[in-house]
Amino acid sequence: MENNISIEKSKTTKIQDVDFNNLSFGSVYTDHMLVCDYKNGAWETPKIIPYGNLSLDPASKIFHYGQSIFEGMKAYKDEAGKIFLFRPTDNHARLNKSAERLAMPSIPESHFMEGLETLLKLEKDWIPTTAGSSLYIRPFMFATGVGFHASPADAYKLIIACAPSGAYFSGKVKVLIEQTYSRAANGGVGYAKAGGNYAGQFYPTKLAAEKGYQQIIWTDDNTHEYIEEAGAMNVFVRINDTLMTAPTNDRILDGITRKSILKIAEDEGIQTEVRKIKVSELVDAANNGSLKEIFGAGTAAVISPLAGFGFDGKDYDLPELEAPFSARLKKRITDIQYNRAEDKFGWRHEVK
Amino acid sequence: MENNISIEKSKTTKIQDVDFNNLSFGSVYTDHMLVCDYKNGAWETPKIIPYGNLSLDPASKIFHYGQSIFEGMKAYKDEAGKIFLFRPTDNHARLNKSAERLAMPSIPESHFMEGLETLLKLEKDWIPTTAGSSLYIRPFMFATGVGFHASPADAYKLIIACAPSGAYFSGKVKVLIEQTYSRAANGGVGYAKAGGNYAGQFYPTKLAAEKGYQQIIWTDDNTHEYIEEAGAMNVFVRINDTLMTAPTNDRILDGITRKSILKIAEDEGIQTEVRKIKVSELVDAANNGSLKEIFGAGTAAVISPLAGFGFDGKDYDLPELEAPFSARLKKRITDIQYNRAEDKFGWRHEVK
Repeated sequence: MENNISIEKSKTTKIQDVDFNNLSFGSVYTDHMLVCDYKNGAWETPKIIPYGNLSLDPASKIFHYGQSIFEGMKAYKDEAGKIFLFRPTDNHARLNKSAERLAMPSIPESHFMEGLETLLKLEKDWIPTTAGSSLYIRPFMFATGVGFHASPADAYKLIIACAPSGAYFSGKVKVLIEQTYSRAANGGVGYAKAGGNYAGQFYPTKLAAEKGYQQIIWTDDNTHEYIEEAGAMNVFVRINDTLMTAPTNDRILDGITRKSILKIAEDEGIQTEVRKIKVSELVDAANNGSLKEIFGAGTAAVISPLAGFGFDGKDYDLPELEAPFSARLKKRITDIQYNRAEDKFGWRHEVK
Repeated sequence: MENNISIEKSKTTKIQDVDFNNLSFGSVYTDHMLVCDYKNGAWETPKIIPYGNLSLDPASKIFHYGQSIFEGMKAYKDEAGKIFLFRPTDNHARLNKSAERLAMPSIPESHFMEGLETLLKLEKDWIPTTAGSSLYIRPFMFATGVGFHASPADAYKLIIACAPSGAYFSGKVKVLIEQTYSRAANGGVGYAKAGGNYAGQFYPTKLAAEKGYQQIIWTDDNTHEYIEEAGAMNVFVRINDTLMTAPTNDRILDGITRKSILKIAEDEGIQTEVRKIKVSELVDAANNGSLKEIFGAGTAAVISPLAGFGFDGKDYDLPELEAPFSARLKKRITDIQYNRAEDKFGWRHEVK
């Protein structure tokens, strides 16, 4: 361990209080967390301490100027008890991409990976093994430096916390294609996993929920003619037998599940297209029966199939298919994640 | 006092450590702060406690999903020692407007105003009286409710902290008219004082600083043809003797200084126009000599005159005027704020 990560063990454990057969998403935390402070222009050595409250000055910039980024990852345990991560260095790279856009310091890969692996080995009993469950991992970084001046902070904290979790969504959801609100600007921070991107979605989602929709499909902020993301996920559309998704840009997150799905789909011989997708195409395809599937893709839910969508005051149902792409692709990706299948793309990362 | 605000006095004071003749902006905090918690669907009674660290669960949504809003206000002390606020109920109303857009609870005016006034009376010795200085007041609200699920928190904290402050900016600044990055989307949260709006500005501002500009003039995210804000301020342009500013919309903050300046300018007999302003107009006016002034307007700086701007690789200087509108308007507004002139618009609010 190059970084000599110190471990302060918790005197007690909460693990016996957890019902591993009835886990919700991200609401129970393990006994420890990794903490790494950035001060005076450098990252200190990461340390593992008991999970517990943080003490912060009210003038810390996290409370004022939104310098806050995060990642979502999962740890999986196979039948032999081996622990795996899925493309973890991609999460690290994206965390640094988000950090750059929010004028926050980048974190060295060794701090991140060694810290994460040390934490996971300590918390290995917390990784659930019931179907669909995993240890959700939340790396996040925020501004601890103080001051009311609207400028980047001079101190930051990286934390990695873990939460044994069941599936993120249950059942098929009905979404509203948004025509008024937007989640991202051209030249903005939409591609970053920045806290502010999520806060801005809550109110429009609440309005959609009042109309009977569980989520929103976001469209471009200028014309609202092109679909971009589904809630906090990337969005895939299947018209006839072609699977398509919008290209990443400065408004759309470069999702790790998204790019893995594209790769697996190609491997499955599914025709894929990465291109701008017009709302009017979806409506036309729904009307003529060629629209087969829409699903969201992200770490938390993996793949979240939609039951239908609303647009311009009208609802469109999606067909119930015998063998949807969504189920086939989800099986392929989760079989790799849980070490139930060959890892031909080299995505699995064993923690040992 | 309807709300029976409790006061826990600090055992010590830091006031003797403060050099009131050399105050920077927002970096020294008074002895006390107001704290009000929202739990179980209701605001608790505000309380005043010694300024000090907050203890927060690492899963609090402020660290993950950016539910964070704030206001900027000032308290002024006149020669007789009377304390004044400037249009404080407008700040309260805007805080609630921001809260709605970020799916946060609105705060009752009585909690806000009584809490603020009680705090100011306690901290009255902290209000500086040297020229241009004031007690900067920072009301802010953020999500304390916990969970990694991307949804609004169920608990929040409103805090009002105070910082005796000198002037925000010194000297005239040169700005870059931004053509790549943007601060706000149509249908986004640009009009709210949301933390995330500020974090997104830091990186482009850093890039501009590397080119020799102190600030950015933001343009619309779609065409970059229209100017919207200057840094974290509203922007005013004077062409010949007409003063103009962009109309507020969902991308532009409804600034209290902005609307006060418009009112005072009208009262001064200055021709004003509230309309979209093209970058090309500025360039043409700079070239033909009719561009007289550009200035930012906001609570912290009041009015911040610009020395020039850069656009498309070219720099444009603004003339040095004998009697600029900026100085005249700043004098009018600060004379009202510091109780040095008649308050014909009813903007002053005495704290007694």
